[in-house]
Amino acid sequence: MTALLRLEEARALLLEHAPPRRVERLALADALGLVLAEDMRAPEPLPPFPRSGMDGYAVRSQDTLGATREVPVTLPLVGVIPAGHPLEDELAPGTTVAIMTGGALPKGADAVIRLEEVRVTDEGVRIFRPVPPMENVAPIGEDVQEGQVVLTAGQLIRPQEINLLAALGIERVPVYARPRVGILSTGDELVGVGEVPGHGQIRNSNGPGMAALVRAAGGEPVMLGIARDVTDVIARALGQSHGCDLLITTGGVSVGQFDVVKEALAVLGAEQLFWRVSIKPGTPVCAGLLDGRLVIGLSGNPAAAITDFDLLVRPLLDHLLGRKRLGLREAEGILDQPVLKKVALTRFLRARAYNGPDGEIHLDTGMAQRAGVLSTMCAANAYAVIPGHCGPLPAGARVKVLLQDDADVYIPRPPSCTMRY
Amino acid sequence: MTALLRLEEARALLLEHAPPRRVERLALADALGLVLAEDMRAPEPLPPFPRSGMDGYAVRSQDTLGATREVPVTLPLVGVIPAGHPLEDELAPGTTVAIMTGGALPKGADAVIRLEEVRVTDEGVRIFRPVPPMENVAPIGEDVQEGQVVLTAGQLIRPQEINLLAALGIERVPVYARPRVGILSTGDELVGVGEVPGHGQIRNSNGPGMAALVRAAGGEPVMLGIARDVTDVIARALGQSHGCDLLITTGGVSVGQFDVVKEALAVLGAEQLFWRVSIKPGTPVCAGLLDGRLVIGLSGNPAAAITDFDLLVRPLLDHLLGRKRLGLREAEGILDQPVLKKVALTRFLRARAYNGPDGEIHLDTGMAQRAGVLSTMCAANAYAVIPGHCGPLPAGARVKVLLQDDADVYIPRPPSCTMRY
Repeated sequence: MTALLRLEEARALLLEHAPPRRVERLALADALGLVLAEDMRAPEPLPPFPRSGMDGYAVRSQDTLGATREVPVTLPLVGVIPAGHPLEDELAPGTTVAIMTGGALPKGADAVIRLEEVRVTDEGVRIFRPVPPMENVAPIGEDVQEGQVVLTAGQLIRPQEINLLAALGIERVPVYARPRVGILSTGDELVGVGEVPGHGQIRNSNGPGMAALVRAAGGEPVMLGIARDVTDVIARALGQSHGCDLLITTGGVSVGQFDVVKEALAVLGAEQLFWRVSIKPGTPVCAGLLDGRLVIGLSGNPAAAITDFDLLVRPLLDHLLGRKRLGLREAEGILDQPVLKKVALTRFLRARAYNGPDGEIHLDTGMAQRAGVLSTMCAANAYAVIPGHCGPLPAGARVKVLLQDDADVYIPRPPSCTMRY
Repeated sequence: MTALLRLEEARALLLEHAPPRRVERLALADALGLVLAEDMRAPEPLPPFPRSGMDGYAVRSQDTLGATREVPVTLPLVGVIPAGHPLEDELAPGTTVAIMTGGALPKGADAVIRLEEVRVTDEGVRIFRPVPPMENVAPIGEDVQEGQVVLTAGQLIRPQEINLLAALGIERVPVYARPRVGILSTGDELVGVGEVPGHGQIRNSNGPGMAALVRAAGGEPVMLGIARDVTDVIARALGQSHGCDLLITTGGVSVGQFDVVKEALAVLGAEQLFWRVSIKPGTPVCAGLLDGRLVIGLSGNPAAAITDFDLLVRPLLDHLLGRKRLGLREAEGILDQPVLKKVALTRFLRARAYNGPDGEIHLDTGMAQRAGVLSTMCAANAYAVIPGHCGPLPAGARVKVLLQDDADVYIPRPPSCTMRY
């Protein structure tokens, strides 16, 4: 049997053989949640005209010099400028015009006084203090100057980025494309989710499960269906997966079955990268290169396949999406239950992470941990990491924890460097 | 002018007048990220048959009693059971059958010994120790028993929940529906994002910006377009928004302009819930009930509209989606810059939250804070909360911070209760 690879090495091999990131120009709305692949420059300034920041009165500031509460300046009111209805003419010296928030400051005017500060009389608008130049005026380019780099490559596109790009008239943006991940379930025992399994059969729950993992991680699942445990059927299914950036399979990788996926890859001339990683659950995981494209064979066991995905596939998708953090977020937690056994493999115990009254993350690992049990994965929001050759550990021991996205806990500290696994 | 409402009161009013949560039965894949509205029971057990957890040999455990390394038991090999290919017949006493992981244990057999532990000879399979009953066998219902509640109402549907439900043959699930949020941009100054603005005009960036906020928050945006600042045009647009759970408008709510949206609501017989909230930016925000349906009028200023959304609309959407936390997550942070002014309103300074070497969250609020500046919202991942009538505050002061979803920081502590705003 091949020696087991350490998780870090398997992860590094996958990243080393990652396909190139694809850059797509997407409509703004479709770019939400993706990462910008190029710097974006402003084709025009924002605001594009001197804009009033208040509802008030546009003035020539010099007309208000010397105004006081006792001796106000009164300027005849010559009109109104709602937003979107600019004045064609210059504001004549010694006059004022009402202006709404967002209205274009007329030529000649250089300031706006808020309507709450003036008194409107039959003679005009009475102003009781000098209005400094540019008061309540956003000059052209105050927000963004023409040609300015407004967003840099690597920036996550969030709603505020969409608002800004839309304001600049940019309708398509270059982003790292969602990786297309082919998903093939293998196994003679599998029937579709909508079918009634016969004796010895189970439903292909890994198909929808893996698709959801891919989608939640930002990828685009491409369903390749179910392949029976016959090498050339698998080979054909894999061969038909053009257009995918990478492939994942489930099943066919345990000791007696590995040959099925391995042989299919061999038939197609794939190069094997690794088989079996020093993690539990999910030990029987393999990876190969098929025409230069990554194929990752995950355990057929749902709980183990999910763990394999989180530890090996997720960092790869994060990389392809141009994200800064690769993989689940790490923290430090305190075990509620002891770890009784010492094993050579690094264990990833399903855990419910929660904050105790001490503010620390506590880890309830009391649910069933057997790889064949899927249901208790639904009670978990994290993995407690028990390093290989470590243990037994008492309740209260500090361990590394990997938090799923929905784990809504305060994180008092990152894992200390002595906890590397 | 109406007295300003406190943020908590405005938020409570919105929750009080929230539409009822809609429950939809969605296909499993579409339920990802939504919250289960009813308990789910297992219609059948998992596994549905006694399943081998290993590649090995199925035996009657009593046949192995007394086996030792020196005096092994040898059982004739009568066949092989791959997964999906169960044996019809009972396993005859004194025989064994090869079985793959996931294979159905044959009648008569009650244990599986791993293939690594035996030696296969011409006479049969040699076993060197007694195999206890149920070794490496997952009995019927080990994972889930028939009729068991597998997921309870309120559970977020993640990939593992989808895998489990698929395994049980459940193809549609009752979830809280994505709220349909009508989005109407108002303003004579607005042109479409793809158009070239004339003098005094700007693009309707709030349309796509609000749609992205709604979508990122789990809602379904319904675009109602741009309404000119004429009451009956707005009234018509709002009146045509049937099928929306709630409506948001942007623009038309500042001092001189409020009448536009307010009058449109009055024309349609809406009841006003509030106008102007004691927050900055985003003070001019209003809410009304139109035929019992919430209409929330946000500032037309993009930065202020985003703040209004985060503080008032987001908690409402979280509530409608059945989530446990309403609104952005709260923490405590340390100001990098002093707050110089004291104002009556609670300020929400855009901030870049990051962890300092001390492990604390630090808040860089050095970017332009003017409501008319949108671009610096893209440098922010959080709001620093400066309570009303509080300040000036020195650099180093501790304040509450609201973290956006993408803020990737360790969170050493929740805000202390003395920091309520």
